[in-house]
Amino acid sequence: MQPSMLESGSRDRGLEAYVTQRLRAARGALGPLGRLSTAEKNAALRAISEALWQRRAAILKANGEDVDAARREGMDDARLDRLVLSEERIRQMQEGLEAVAALPDPIGELLEYAVRPDGLRIEKLRVPIGVVAIVYESRPNVTVDAAAITLKTGNAAVLRGGSEALRSNAALVAAIHTGLEAVGAPSGAVQFIEKVERQTVDLMIRAKGLVDLAIPRGGAGLISHVGERSLVPVIETGVGNCHVYVDRAADLDMAGKIVVNAKTQRPSVCNAIETLLVHEDVAQQWLPSLAADLSARGVQLRACPQALAILGGEDQPRVRAATQEDWDTEYLGLILAVRVVQGLDAALAHIARYGTRHSEAIVTEDVSAAEVFLSEVDAAAVYHNASTRFTDGYEFGLGVEIGISTQKLHARGPMGLRELTSYKYVVRGAGHVRG
Amino acid sequence: MQPSMLESGSRDRGLEAYVTQRLRAARGALGPLGRLSTAEKNAALRAISEALWQRRAAILKANGEDVDAARREGMDDARLDRLVLSEERIRQMQEGLEAVAALPDPIGELLEYAVRPDGLRIEKLRVPIGVVAIVYESRPNVTVDAAAITLKTGNAAVLRGGSEALRSNAALVAAIHTGLEAVGAPSGAVQFIEKVERQTVDLMIRAKGLVDLAIPRGGAGLISHVGERSLVPVIETGVGNCHVYVDRAADLDMAGKIVVNAKTQRPSVCNAIETLLVHEDVAQQWLPSLAADLSARGVQLRACPQALAILGGEDQPRVRAATQEDWDTEYLGLILAVRVVQGLDAALAHIARYGTRHSEAIVTEDVSAAEVFLSEVDAAAVYHNASTRFTDGYEFGLGVEIGISTQKLHARGPMGLRELTSYKYVVRGAGHVRG
Repeated sequence: MQPSMLESGSRDRGLEAYVTQRLRAARGALGPLGRLSTAEKNAALRAISEALWQRRAAILKANGEDVDAARREGMDDARLDRLVLSEERIRQMQEGLEAVAALPDPIGELLEYAVRPDGLRIEKLRVPIGVVAIVYESRPNVTVDAAAITLKTGNAAVLRGGSEALRSNAALVAAIHTGLEAVGAPSGAVQFIEKVERQTVDLMIRAKGLVDLAIPRGGAGLISHVGERSLVPVIETGVGNCHVYVDRAADLDMAGKIVVNAKTQRPSVCNAIETLLVHEDVAQQWLPSLAADLSARGVQLRACPQALAILGGEDQPRVRAATQEDWDTEYLGLILAVRVVQGLDAALAHIARYGTRHSEAIVTEDVSAAEVFLSEVDAAAVYHNASTRFTDGYEFGLGVEIGISTQKLHARGPMGLRELTSYKYVVRGAGHVRG
Repeated sequence: MQPSMLESGSRDRGLEAYVTQRLRAARGALGPLGRLSTAEKNAALRAISEALWQRRAAILKANGEDVDAARREGMDDARLDRLVLSEERIRQMQEGLEAVAALPDPIGELLEYAVRPDGLRIEKLRVPIGVVAIVYESRPNVTVDAAAITLKTGNAAVLRGGSEALRSNAALVAAIHTGLEAVGAPSGAVQFIEKVERQTVDLMIRAKGLVDLAIPRGGAGLISHVGERSLVPVIETGVGNCHVYVDRAADLDMAGKIVVNAKTQRPSVCNAIETLLVHEDVAQQWLPSLAADLSARGVQLRACPQALAILGGEDQPRVRAATQEDWDTEYLGLILAVRVVQGLDAALAHIARYGTRHSEAIVTEDVSAAEVFLSEVDAAAVYHNASTRFTDGYEFGLGVEIGISTQKLHARGPMGLRELTSYKYVVRGAGHVRG
């Protein structure tokens, strides 16, 4: 009688069966994956690299179709740039695979060892987490990165990329499977969700018992959706409302370089800054020259009343009055909010209220002010006299990065191989019983 | 027009305001708490110990009222035993506080240090998690344990105990606050939710941004409720469907001692076993004597068809046929399911399907079988020739225990002080910008 409802109902059950089957296949691969040696995992990574190159024509053809469709749909340039592949970008993926192969294998690492007074021997060993669901937007490079990092850490990946990159991702996953099969590694360890109905995300993140960890990579909307709906553990990544506080005792030349770098070197990323906080004692002398520097680089300012007065009001090009909303906004573009503060305490209060616990910096020559800032600010990375742009797995020496965690549980800041592992206690006795 | 709805609405808003105020007060205490030295935190722990003893009359009076009310409501003996306090039990709480004071302070520990090629200095430092919401049942000792462990780790605790222990908990928290105030420590660091409407739990675990971690301690119902409803990170604790697998090559005398210990030494706890898996080659010769041992200790058996045949069928006292449900049941009492398996692989498959990833043991003299078991079983603690009862913070040398995590993120197995910490990166530069 209500065919649309029936259809919808049966489609849902079909989707659920489809996702469940993929998740079970990933779980099923954990055993064989766990039995691979480090050398075998590295051989698999290199085989994937080879397969990507061999199949580059098919990958670029599929990607071209995605890009054409995205252009027709009006995708903006920044997103298009992330979607587009080229031989050069496939080379970069290959380099990424080589880099992961070259890193030490964290699995099996002996984290602690104790012989208890009763002779019980307890090892704490690093182990994989299990099935990791990765939900991301239309960036095909994440497909290869995520597969490489999960493979090296003995985790099975279930990949759910954005719909605009579907053909590219499918071609990349086909190459990944070819590589795995070429060396006899379990291709089930990399599962790809090729159905892009929104509901597949929910089915993944609510599959308690089948998924050990969900990692959303993308915009704030995706991340909060996953956080709210998930029944499995989640690591939230990537939302960065980051600040630089320029103190009264700052080297103002250094401050200018840091602010320009943190805002403009790559404005679309999470570790770029969104708000500048500046001590009132130096605002008058320094803000005009900073504003000129930023304006020359195309940055628009959103200024608090005091900053606006210093900068000559809204008549100036690229200067506008800030609204309350500005303090909360991650622009991810060439806009910077500016607020004059009475001092360190006011800066700390602003950051505590509006920051997303990602990356926060102070510029000052006053060591005690710096130490208060570094100790009191609650963020994954806190900086003294350096740009927030360094919050990055490569810059921190992790070798790779699967994302930047903004939560405090399990992993904080850049996540590399170790952050995708857990541990277990292996206990050996000789008939030990508890008295 | 609908007074009951209005009343309900206003009561809800009142509760929400109440819980939010408690959570904000906990957040507000984080700053002052973070500025306490280790010596000051230890002095606070000792002051709490003193205050508990000084106020013991009031505590025991309040507890007596709780116990009387619980008896009238028909609380069973096991739960009553956990609820009852005595001077002896207050002494034990004091010893617990002393033990926490004596442990090394994990906060501020330098976990890693690197000077990057460009001279950037990166420290990875251990820091508190923040506001920890602990939801538990009617065990007043948890109130003092949780306060002590969170205080030592610089975390603020928001405690929500079971309604049957309300008067006891309120009296204990009053003593905790007296102790904190006596040494000038922030009493806001230990918040107590004295409203026991069920809804307060949901308000706590959905307070994203105010709560950094929720730990449910209690039965499977509470834990799954928190896991399903929470919007904040959760560490699930305590559900243990644990197994012993007695291999063909087991020392059967040792196996008997381990099974008896793991089942009967303290049957109500999560690390006791619920199912015995026994290799078919030794079942016939060994099960009857084991069953006699267990029966003498009051243990009832739920046997698979093969075990049932060996044990003489359901005519035997304390022996009944197992149903499918038995393999999934955490009895937490003197009942043991028994299943004859064809070998190690069947045991591994049973554990993978029914285990809760808590503690699993193999008894065997065959080292290679043991190694396969230890490596393939996915659980917080895996044992060779030892009782599962050792999965415990004290037995593992952690000094204290806030619970046993059965998830793989952040903390696995017994959780002590370090498991209640996070880390942050402190980065020092000299005007470093990213190129």
